[in-house]
Amino acid sequence: MTHAQQLLETHPRGPAIEPGALVACIEACFDCAQSCTACADADLAEDDVATLIRCIRLCLDCGDVCIASGNILSRQTEFDPKLARPVVQACAQACRICAEECERHAAYHEHCRICAETCRHCEQACDEVLSLLAA
Amino acid sequence: MTHAQQLLETHPRGPAIEPGALVACIEACFDCAQSCTACADADLAEDDVATLIRCIRLCLDCGDVCIASGNILSRQTEFDPKLARPVVQACAQACRICAEECERHAAYHEHCRICAETCRHCEQACDEVLSLLAA
Amino acid sequence: MTHAQQLLETHPRGPAIEPGALVACIEACFDCAQSCTACADADLAEDDVATLIRCIRLCLDCGDVCIASGNILSRQTEFDPKLARPVVQACAQACRICAEECERHAAYHEHCRICAETCRHCEQACDEVLSLLAA
Amino acid sequence: MTHAQQLLETHPRGPAIEPGALVACIEACFDCAQSCTACADADLAEDDVATLIRCIRLCLDCGDVCIASGNILSRQTEFDPKLARPVVQACAQACRICAEECERHAAYHEHCRICAETCRHCEQACDEVLSLLAA
Repeated sequence: MTHAQQLLETHPRGPAIEPGALVACIEACFDCAQSCTACADADLAEDDVATLIRCIRLCLDCGDVCIASGNILSRQTEFDPKLARPVVQACAQACRICAEECERHAAYHEHCRICAETCRHCEQACDEVLSLLAA
Repeated sequence: MTHAQQLLETHPRGPAIEPGALVACIEACFDCAQSCTACADADLAEDDVATLIRCIRLCLDCGDVCIASGNILSRQTEFDPKLARPVVQACAQACRICAEECERHAAYHEHCRICAETCRHCEQACDEVLSLLAA
Repeated sequence: MTHAQQLLETHPRGPAIEPGALVACIEACFDCAQSCTACADADLAEDDVATLIRCIRLCLDCGDVCIASGNILSRQTEFDPKLARPVVQACAQACRICAEECERHAAYHEHCRICAETCRHCEQACDEVLSLLAA
Repeated sequence: MTHAQQLLETHPRGPAIEPGALVACIEACFDCAQSCTACADADLAEDDVATLIRCIRLCLDCGDVCIASGNILSRQTEFDPKLARPVVQACAQACRICAEECERHAAYHEHCRICAETCRHCEQACDEVLSLLAA
């Protein structure tokens, strides 16, 4: 249980978009950031680390973008969809590409299977927010 | 629900410390980072923002330290307690100082009350991890 | 003087794009991240903080995106332009919007004038990298 | 050339500590963060990646702490040495441990030699700031 929803409800200004989708996306971004950090690290401990180089690199990228996206969506004051939109688009794309790579290793490494799911969940949460953000 | 526990359980190496305390601390760090970002932002939208400057500043600091601490605790490969210990100590201290300030505004601003609770929870989770980390 | 160029030259794989533009963009991203953190903080200490709320918020956003972009461009192994491109686009856009706001306060606050310049410099460095990245 | 010094000079409040040491430490933190990101990535592209696992992990940790430390030192408003001190101590320690590991690979990998130098430089800049911060 995170406190994202409570904080959104007690913000002096209303959320810029539908709060359910927003909270889901904020939580998905931070969960995905943690998952990508953990999966890249688990890859480093595998015997076949040499086959996991692309997975490690993409997890590091995806984690970085998820932190930025999660922070920006956590801010409601003077929210600017022209800034938020490309950030959430970049986050959805990073999650998509990272998930595709993790899925290639999912049969052999459980952490890749879990991280792929987390990335797909975050990708969908970002897509939902994008559908609600003014173009 | 985050995926921190599942990722810890599927890591090829066992966790450096008791997994229950570790997962709790990882989740608390990311939740506190999000909470601090959201509280600093809610402060900016309050009419009495001029009285909340110290709260904003400490929330920004605490959020930065929580991300570093959450990431470092998420890594089990070649875990080095000599590096992790001062980071988690810094995180506990940032949470303590930020909580003290948020508590001063808790009666007037619900987001400060919630953020203070989140910081206290993270402070305790860090202290628990510190008690388990070899000195 | 940063070490970005030396590290790029000693990487076992060649850079994905023209190294001069890449180093300039990496350095601009980290400089802009620092500048945005410092400008948001200086705003908090100004007597007219209530007129600087949008500036603070955009500086925080821009700083977050610049760290993600600077980290991702610092990685040459398994570089994927499909992931990097939207991140650098988001960074250029964040720099543009943050610069526009800082410029509105540049006549009154020197830190806003400097931060606007840093954002414009980073925006241009990102645009240069985007022109070199395969579409 | 970064803009850290100009931003410090134009801040409405004076710096909490001697500005020369402070600017040097802020710049060292961001340079070290970039260097650690780049070195971890270069390690991933080496044929002997299996011997560089500890180097990668420590570079990732050190980069995370350096960003937190660089951001916190970039803020002068309501600066609290009780919060800053343990963060800068954690940063100095992370740089020390990461440098020791990079030095072990410096004869074989130029990026490790450069990253070790950057870490040592940041460690010293942090120690200088710590000597100036009230205990």
